[in-house]
Amino acid sequence: MTLKIGVIGTGAIGQDHTRRINQVLAGAKVTALNDVNRANAESCQRDYAPDAQIFDDAHALIASDVDAVLVCSWGQTHEEYVLAAIAAGKPCFCEKPLATTAEGARRIIAAEQAVGKRLVQVGFMRRYDPGYVALKKAVKDVTGAPLMIHAAHRNPRVGENYVTPMAIHDTLIHEIDVLRWLLDDDYVSAQVFFPRKSPRAHEKLRDPQIVVLETAKGVVIDVEVFVNCHYGYDIQCEIVGEDGIAKLPEPMAIQTRSGAVLGQQILTDWKDRFIDSYDYELADFLKAAARGTAAGPTAWDGYVAAVTADACVAAQESEGTPVKIDLPARPALYD
Amino acid sequence: MTLKIGVIGTGAIGQDHTRRINQVLAGAKVTALNDVNRANAESCQRDYAPDAQIFDDAHALIASDVDAVLVCSWGQTHEEYVLAAIAAGKPCFCEKPLATTAEGARRIIAAEQAVGKRLVQVGFMRRYDPGYVALKKAVKDVTGAPLMIHAAHRNPRVGENYVTPMAIHDTLIHEIDVLRWLLDDDYVSAQVFFPRKSPRAHEKLRDPQIVVLETAKGVVIDVEVFVNCHYGYDIQCEIVGEDGIAKLPEPMAIQTRSGAVLGQQILTDWKDRFIDSYDYELADFLKAAARGTAAGPTAWDGYVAAVTADACVAAQESEGTPVKIDLPARPALYD
Amino acid sequence: MTLKIGVIGTGAIGQDHTRRINQVLAGAKVTALNDVNRANAESCQRDYAPDAQIFDDAHALIASDVDAVLVCSWGQTHEEYVLAAIAAGKPCFCEKPLATTAEGARRIIAAEQAVGKRLVQVGFMRRYDPGYVALKKAVKDVTGAPLMIHAAHRNPRVGENYVTPMAIHDTLIHEIDVLRWLLDDDYVSAQVFFPRKSPRAHEKLRDPQIVVLETAKGVVIDVEVFVNCHYGYDIQCEIVGEDGIAKLPEPMAIQTRSGAVLGQQILTDWKDRFIDSYDYELADFLKAAARGTAAGPTAWDGYVAAVTADACVAAQESEGTPVKIDLPARPALYD
Amino acid sequence: MTLKIGVIGTGAIGQDHTRRINQVLAGAKVTALNDVNRANAESCQRDYAPDAQIFDDAHALIASDVDAVLVCSWGQTHEEYVLAAIAAGKPCFCEKPLATTAEGARRIIAAEQAVGKRLVQVGFMRRYDPGYVALKKAVKDVTGAPLMIHAAHRNPRVGENYVTPMAIHDTLIHEIDVLRWLLDDDYVSAQVFFPRKSPRAHEKLRDPQIVVLETAKGVVIDVEVFVNCHYGYDIQCEIVGEDGIAKLPEPMAIQTRSGAVLGQQILTDWKDRFIDSYDYELADFLKAAARGTAAGPTAWDGYVAAVTADACVAAQESEGTPVKIDLPARPALYD
Repeated sequence: MTLKIGVIGTGAIGQDHTRRINQVLAGAKVTALNDVNRANAESCQRDYAPDAQIFDDAHALIASDVDAVLVCSWGQTHEEYVLAAIAAGKPCFCEKPLATTAEGARRIIAAEQAVGKRLVQVGFMRRYDPGYVALKKAVKDVTGAPLMIHAAHRNPRVGENYVTPMAIHDTLIHEIDVLRWLLDDDYVSAQVFFPRKSPRAHEKLRDPQIVVLETAKGVVIDVEVFVNCHYGYDIQCEIVGEDGIAKLPEPMAIQTRSGAVLGQQILTDWKDRFIDSYDYELADFLKAAARGTAAGPTAWDGYVAAVTADACVAAQESEGTPVKIDLPARPALYD
Repeated sequence: MTLKIGVIGTGAIGQDHTRRINQVLAGAKVTALNDVNRANAESCQRDYAPDAQIFDDAHALIASDVDAVLVCSWGQTHEEYVLAAIAAGKPCFCEKPLATTAEGARRIIAAEQAVGKRLVQVGFMRRYDPGYVALKKAVKDVTGAPLMIHAAHRNPRVGENYVTPMAIHDTLIHEIDVLRWLLDDDYVSAQVFFPRKSPRAHEKLRDPQIVVLETAKGVVIDVEVFVNCHYGYDIQCEIVGEDGIAKLPEPMAIQTRSGAVLGQQILTDWKDRFIDSYDYELADFLKAAARGTAAGPTAWDGYVAAVTADACVAAQESEGTPVKIDLPARPALYD
Repeated sequence: MTLKIGVIGTGAIGQDHTRRINQVLAGAKVTALNDVNRANAESCQRDYAPDAQIFDDAHALIASDVDAVLVCSWGQTHEEYVLAAIAAGKPCFCEKPLATTAEGARRIIAAEQAVGKRLVQVGFMRRYDPGYVALKKAVKDVTGAPLMIHAAHRNPRVGENYVTPMAIHDTLIHEIDVLRWLLDDDYVSAQVFFPRKSPRAHEKLRDPQIVVLETAKGVVIDVEVFVNCHYGYDIQCEIVGEDGIAKLPEPMAIQTRSGAVLGQQILTDWKDRFIDSYDYELADFLKAAARGTAAGPTAWDGYVAAVTADACVAAQESEGTPVKIDLPARPALYD
Repeated sequence: MTLKIGVIGTGAIGQDHTRRINQVLAGAKVTALNDVNRANAESCQRDYAPDAQIFDDAHALIASDVDAVLVCSWGQTHEEYVLAAIAAGKPCFCEKPLATTAEGARRIIAAEQAVGKRLVQVGFMRRYDPGYVALKKAVKDVTGAPLMIHAAHRNPRVGENYVTPMAIHDTLIHEIDVLRWLLDDDYVSAQVFFPRKSPRAHEKLRDPQIVVLETAKGVVIDVEVFVNCHYGYDIQCEIVGEDGIAKLPEPMAIQTRSGAVLGQQILTDWKDRFIDSYDYELADFLKAAARGTAAGPTAWDGYVAAVTADACVAAQESEGTPVKIDLPARPALYD
């Protein structure tokens, strides 16, 4: 049986997921498309889904005969469409953020709990990266209980629109999710250090930053966020445990000897870094959706990420002062 | 449109390809199964292809409404089924060897030439390994024209049935194909050195061996074949060019610090090493088959591998004396 | 001309320096020995300096015909002997600490300034480690102006006498000196984070710790201090600059493939890590002493290390609150 | 007691050894200098040995009150001066080659045997390289009995005077010595492969080459010699044993991230690669000379290297045909 998928939002990521479902992955087909700009949906239809129907209204798409929904539209609309998919009882893959406010994420959790089963997967693709998966295994096999994490998230450059809080909401957000997944733990406080600013950072951006997070189990995490690092796109993560250390692998690269340098290329485009994780996360979604439910990162994970990100932004603003992070008890649905 | 695939031979690799087509890859479905042992085909049907029809006769399967054929049966039968698929005008993916003799491979080439278009892909999956693909790119970008290759193919151990010539036909065969693909070149001679035998090698196996191949362009290649190396499954390849060197990456692994060792795991099972290459080669086959043709390693490649392997076995027997490798001109179909 | 050296304190390090001068390095000879325990001095004489005279009084040794003095005695006595050597106008190599209090270090600075030339070298040997020397060069050549440093100082284990402040005075002290030398900068604040305690740390030791130092130029440094890390003795230092990153090399080690692990040994004994640095620092001292002066780490460096260490201990005690570090202007003698 | 050393030949290496003895190492002093060109000796005296006496005749130097002799003169003169030193009963360090012919080396062996104790050390410094020393230890600890060695000796470029046989006499000679020391074994045959010539090699030089050596114990060794490799000076050595593999470390280098490359510098000047080995070999010589004898590589080692090199040159000339290497029994003095 081939699963019928509706895609809401056919920008870059929506188009890419459509291609993925129709040309790469087994078991599903994009049969419905919607975009606030109809021309976008037509372009996506032409390139990747010639048999798909275009809906001018996302709610009509959700109400149609699709079996599951991908929400890839503008962040402000996520909450509305995810709630509609839940109301329709349809599995729903939602790109991050799940909602633009913690309050919005909480409404989604409430709706999903009311249904009594998982229907929402949030697009935190790093959990599907083979490197992080192996790192999580190494925590179990090698390091012993984690005590510290040293991490870094570096971009070569960012545009003029990227201002200081975006270092949290658009960049650190990935570490916020993947590190608590690695640790099976939650954050209790955040503190931000601002080193001397890089001369490459524009006026409205303080860059780099070091965010120190502490967890309920007492793990101390330092994450360097440096989005004008110039040299490449580079994700580092090292877990220091009671017995040893495990480190995220460098991306696969040819080692060369040339011009007096023993070297290997560093990626420069973030899109290349987790390229296979997108395949894996969506395959996981399709597999669960075929059973009428959802897998992977939950709405609760989306909510926790939102609460933590808010605390980190507050910590940016109260520079140097730790900010507490308080979470309600995790609902049983998400255990 | 979903491509209908018939699988001949549902042993380990046939079952795995069936799973791959039905559960992993987009665009095709296994609709027909055949095995010399019907119970095998039933087991494959039950696990991976519940809707597939079982054929007791491989020729009937080829003649049925399948769009393309996978030949995964015992090596002795490959030639017969590939010729039948060509006669039926159906794209055909054939696991190695294409034929058990160079003569047999030549008959397949003749048949394919008679049809006038490519229908056969041989299962040399290493060409699809991201490491080798990147290495080939590095030859273009970094090393300059190749002068030498240092390679190694190491298995932790082999069974009692694995005798000296199998080091060529089952092991070196992968290097034979992938190195000439990397170099875009052909071999002109082979010589074999036998170091002192490993005490772990059984009576009928001389192990390790060093095979020295020379190419038409004058590249000298040394390949260590060591199938009782004990420590792991390890594939090495280093290309030395006029300007620099490029080396096949180690498989992705977590770097750990533990027990006074900075280490990373080495694979021990060959099945894990090129696991994603199987997906890529088959996706490539399905894509070409949808257009009624074949891609990837050709019947000519299968033939050249057979001729080269025969020369290497002759070189084993005439220990220390180089054996010449003569090939006819490459037919235009394979340019 | 052979320089005559007197060694005060013939414990482990004093004996080792005696051996170094008499058996390894050119240009000097230990001619005088003193130890609070005469038997120690006799043992050193027997093993490494048969021609040396034993003095029961360190001041008599300083006053004798020795050209230069090594102070390797108990830390509490350093200030007294260094001041005596300065008074005698003799170059003096003093193992760390220069003095047990910042006040004591300041008295030494005053005495040296009164003489008007450098006579004191402090035994911060890391500045002579070829790795750190290369790292300093890389800051100049590759990284651009530093913005952050990520460092770690890990010991496999410590004894029962090692209590929390010793993580600063005995362990972090090396980073305190070498990082400001790398950066050519001084510290302005210190903050300490205590992750969950390692179960291997005894009752009177909080371990691990993360010390965050900020410098006058705005560099933010995080140093993990983990003295029960179990797996080895491991020193890490990574400098993140405006243009790129440079990392301290791992100590030289054979890469092996064995038992499914691609690995290299990690040192477990701190004495092996900087073993050649001791040769280099002492050679540098002897060279300067032959000219009647001193080179390498200055009394001022010893003073700054003391002040910074005091602030770090205060930061340990006021857990989580940053502690300011105020330094007087650097005297011209030390520019 | 300070050992009095006479240096014959004050070219680059003779001057460097003089500096080493007088400024770096403990226990000896260069008191006598000789060079065929007196101005050279005067320059060496001025720079490194102001108290040394200049001898116009090397034999007069040997006959003077020096305790030991360094032969650093032109290769053609080595045999004569080494024989004179032996006749004088004085320990003698001789730069390679020990003699320009195997016959000459044999005469030295005979003379040393007649004396009945070792007096000669040959300047094969690689045995003192910490990397090779660690590699030899790894053979004992990790690899099990060696079966194969893969090695490479690469120079960025060579001058017009460097012709094909020099790839053996000046370049491979180091592998010839150090590999049999690593293996504790001797060679029984040599074969040379010539890949396509590098366009950077001049007319009278075939470059690169692959030399295959077999040992008495059955180890097969392939050594790539490539003296126009362009990218750097690079020495590789990997030992494949029954149980595992050990590899010579890369020289210490800072790992940098810069310009989309994760890299470390490769040396380009051979003089930097084994720079500390020269210190260690000479310290070892001085230590033995103080006891009236010699340590390290023996005259026998120099003889075996000469015989092996001759066979390799013969193998170059009979391209592709193996050349046998026959050695007399090793005299007891060298066990």
